[in-house]
Amino acid sequence: VIAEVSGLIAAAGANIVSADQYSDSSTSTFYARFAYVGATDPAPALRQWADGEGAAIWFSGATQKVVVCGSTEPHCVADLLERVEAGELACDVVAVVSDREVLAAYAERHGVPFVHVPVGDERAAQEEAFAAALDDSGADLVVLARYMRILPGWVAERWAGAMINIHHSTLPAFVGARAYERAYERGVKLVGATAHYVTEELDAGPIIAQGSVEVTHRCTVDDLRRTGRDVERVTLARAVRLHLEDRVIVAGERAVVFA
Amino acid sequence: VIAEVSGLIAAAGANIVSADQYSDSSTSTFYARFAYVGATDPAPALRQWADGEGAAIWFSGATQKVVVCGSTEPHCVADLLERVEAGELACDVVAVVSDREVLAAYAERHGVPFVHVPVGDERAAQEEAFAAALDDSGADLVVLARYMRILPGWVAERWAGAMINIHHSTLPAFVGARAYERAYERGVKLVGATAHYVTEELDAGPIIAQGSVEVTHRCTVDDLRRTGRDVERVTLARAVRLHLEDRVIVAGERAVVFA
Amino acid sequence: VIAEVSGLIAAAGANIVSADQYSDSSTSTFYARFAYVGATDPAPALRQWADGEGAAIWFSGATQKVVVCGSTEPHCVADLLERVEAGELACDVVAVVSDREVLAAYAERHGVPFVHVPVGDERAAQEEAFAAALDDSGADLVVLARYMRILPGWVAERWAGAMINIHHSTLPAFVGARAYERAYERGVKLVGATAHYVTEELDAGPIIAQGSVEVTHRCTVDDLRRTGRDVERVTLARAVRLHLEDRVIVAGERAVVFA
Amino acid sequence: VIAEVSGLIAAAGANIVSADQYSDSSTSTFYARFAYVGATDPAPALRQWADGEGAAIWFSGATQKVVVCGSTEPHCVADLLERVEAGELACDVVAVVSDREVLAAYAERHGVPFVHVPVGDERAAQEEAFAAALDDSGADLVVLARYMRILPGWVAERWAGAMINIHHSTLPAFVGARAYERAYERGVKLVGATAHYVTEELDAGPIIAQGSVEVTHRCTVDDLRRTGRDVERVTLARAVRLHLEDRVIVAGERAVVFA
Repeated sequence: VIAEVSGLIAAAGANIVSADQYSDSSTSTFYARFAYVGATDPAPALRQWADGEGAAIWFSGATQKVVVCGSTEPHCVADLLERVEAGELACDVVAVVSDREVLAAYAERHGVPFVHVPVGDERAAQEEAFAAALDDSGADLVVLARYMRILPGWVAERWAGAMINIHHSTLPAFVGARAYERAYERGVKLVGATAHYVTEELDAGPIIAQGSVEVTHRCTVDDLRRTGRDVERVTLARAVRLHLEDRVIVAGERAVVFA
Repeated sequence: VIAEVSGLIAAAGANIVSADQYSDSSTSTFYARFAYVGATDPAPALRQWADGEGAAIWFSGATQKVVVCGSTEPHCVADLLERVEAGELACDVVAVVSDREVLAAYAERHGVPFVHVPVGDERAAQEEAFAAALDDSGADLVVLARYMRILPGWVAERWAGAMINIHHSTLPAFVGARAYERAYERGVKLVGATAHYVTEELDAGPIIAQGSVEVTHRCTVDDLRRTGRDVERVTLARAVRLHLEDRVIVAGERAVVFA
Repeated sequence: VIAEVSGLIAAAGANIVSADQYSDSSTSTFYARFAYVGATDPAPALRQWADGEGAAIWFSGATQKVVVCGSTEPHCVADLLERVEAGELACDVVAVVSDREVLAAYAERHGVPFVHVPVGDERAAQEEAFAAALDDSGADLVVLARYMRILPGWVAERWAGAMINIHHSTLPAFVGARAYERAYERGVKLVGATAHYVTEELDAGPIIAQGSVEVTHRCTVDDLRRTGRDVERVTLARAVRLHLEDRVIVAGERAVVFA
Repeated sequence: VIAEVSGLIAAAGANIVSADQYSDSSTSTFYARFAYVGATDPAPALRQWADGEGAAIWFSGATQKVVVCGSTEPHCVADLLERVEAGELACDVVAVVSDREVLAAYAERHGVPFVHVPVGDERAAQEEAFAAALDDSGADLVVLARYMRILPGWVAERWAGAMINIHHSTLPAFVGARAYERAYERGVKLVGATAHYVTEELDAGPIIAQGSVEVTHRCTVDDLRRTGRDVERVTLARAVRLHLEDRVIVAGERAVVFA
């Protein structure tokens, strides 16, 4: 495969800048990523080759549109907006969507539309309004930056492979809510964070990036939260960057990350 | 409490070298560790004070006797024996106990008696023989250095607070067997290890030390195992050292570690 | 000392919340930090005791005033302002001071006065204007958050123990400018950051906090910069928090950090 | 290049298992590593291609012979011998060479010849005897596992790219001797280790692997040494494994590491 693909790219007059590949022996699947530059476009030849082989193929497109969702804790949303503004993350943030109002100021500060989808009497109504807000934004990628509501399965399915969540533990430890409280009760000496694609099953989607940091018995739950926020910020930003650079491929329940 | 205890130590003519304390607000319990040197012994006065206050008190004693248990993987057993020989861990290793024979060579190399407790037809018989071997060794501390058999509750209870196990994941992730296989399947980007006191519930005892290290999707299960071994070795050795220096206090389901 | 100080605090009817101490045997100096709460104030008794012993003593005061200085890279300044706004760092930011104009927008966003001290023909004039801006701000603490100008010795001396700089390497590696470029040329596999008090000698003051992260040969200088920024942010914020909580004592060329 | 090389391998009927490449834009040099399996050998065709292109090319050969050198501290030597015995490092250790006698027991334990090259009145004589011992061993790789003597330039040159040293700091910090003492005096909050190829200039050769770990002001020099030993062991073992798997290419003053 490497020989054939790289041959086609070279034949089209393009130059391979980087090539990564991974052969998953447990599923007999081969994954590869090629970055190339050149005056001519090898895409048509590659598409034809992929059709012949029955291989799936993607091409990097234009700058992606991103919608960022949060609730009350601003640290991840603020961090992402700051990185986009500083040119570290190449994307357009088209909306900040939240069930609460506290993040409006952060969106405004960065000139990003804020969409408030409050929780009323009916849970289903909020979920549909939330899903509609994502759709209306025209986003390519949804980032759940400490958005504290559990999504229904149909929303996860709608955004399969295009919705990244940051969870405040090193999954599969402490799936679900109150992860820092449970980490305290369990007396762990490490806390961390996991950025993963959202799937129907809660906190069980393919893991893109994880980080952790040492803590001691002296740390209160608030200390764990504060310490954890630094890991959450960095881990989420890293996962979003890897996704935006088309370095992540979902391979069943795992994520192949060509970092 | 700090004022009273340090006053008693000073009154006895001893000099406090270090003092640590921790107030667990969730249980309203106060923990402290004092290290002192001096010509006279403040212990009697401290004991009397503790009796009056209804406080539990321990004193560091002579060099501890340690029994090390393993199965087939030698890395943790070899590492501990090496550290004891190099003078890094101040203890006497009185026996290596194993359900298999591979570790006999490691014990012999370091001049430590090897006790083979093979698994026969009856699980209960092996468990009793294993427990008897621990008792016969006269050990103060039991270290399960990748000993691959689940202990019955009565053995865990017998060695409460004096039996340390190394588990090959950052607990509470991947409780039980096949942790690296499951880590691979789950596609985690961090693997690690946990040293904890053994209690009746499997892999649920108070955590003394944890470590983790980054891995990628490229790592096979064997790669995870190899990488994980380095974390296991260091994490277990650290926990054993902290225990031998009387720096760990079990506080319910948590461990207070005055590092 | 522990016995005496804790006795005085207890005698005044206050309750010790935490106590840390460190005995530096190389200089025969003893350092301690006591946190206490109570209806009455043990400070007068402690001051009297310290006078008698010839010991230096400090008491935590009101919320500290902080001036943040930067140049062109906004990440550390933005991060600190964000943390203060989120209530993570308990201080008042009284000014952002810069030799450039790019940070004005960040200051304005957080309602903090921006002081522009441009570089003109005379270096000395800028230095004096910069020093005057710090003085005029009435700050207790100066944070150099990627302020890219070398300060004259008299400014360092003026703010001894009250001026924290973030350097973009794990000092003493790569003292001075162009640390990421030199890290690239040297082919290091770790980059990091150091938060330290500023002294007359460049990048040689007492180290409060350090962090590092793995990198590979593939990282360009820009990649090192991007990766390093995450370490810089977290390391600087940690050092500032430790300082604001009066957890750092300068001990000759080292910093005692009661974390 | 990727297209041509992978085409030649495929044409010879071999299958590419993994391919890594790196383009160093600062020197306009292209580095690549291909791992392949197959019934036929593409080596002749690849050699011919390399000749035509003026490219340097290496092929992995038989199991490498390794000589391990140490002085008084046994931890790195013991660790390497243990890993080889456990099958983690695929090589033959043909000798342990030392200026002291303490490591003889470790060599014997693992059935490896021990060569004692003591220091007498003449430094040059010891150096020549040491160099002869390396030559006589027939080794492909020399590992300086805390060998505490500085080598003359001609020995470094003789083993260019085939002699790995472990230094007890994160270079370029603390080049030379007494690194932990100087780390203590400087008050660093991180200690670490660097595995690098030896070159004529002391501690300046291409870096293969580095590691670091947090320490506090409480750590004595002995604590730093103990903590550092864990990093030294793991970092050196990692570098040796990467070298043995032909994953490291020296690229000027840097090391390309296809991990």
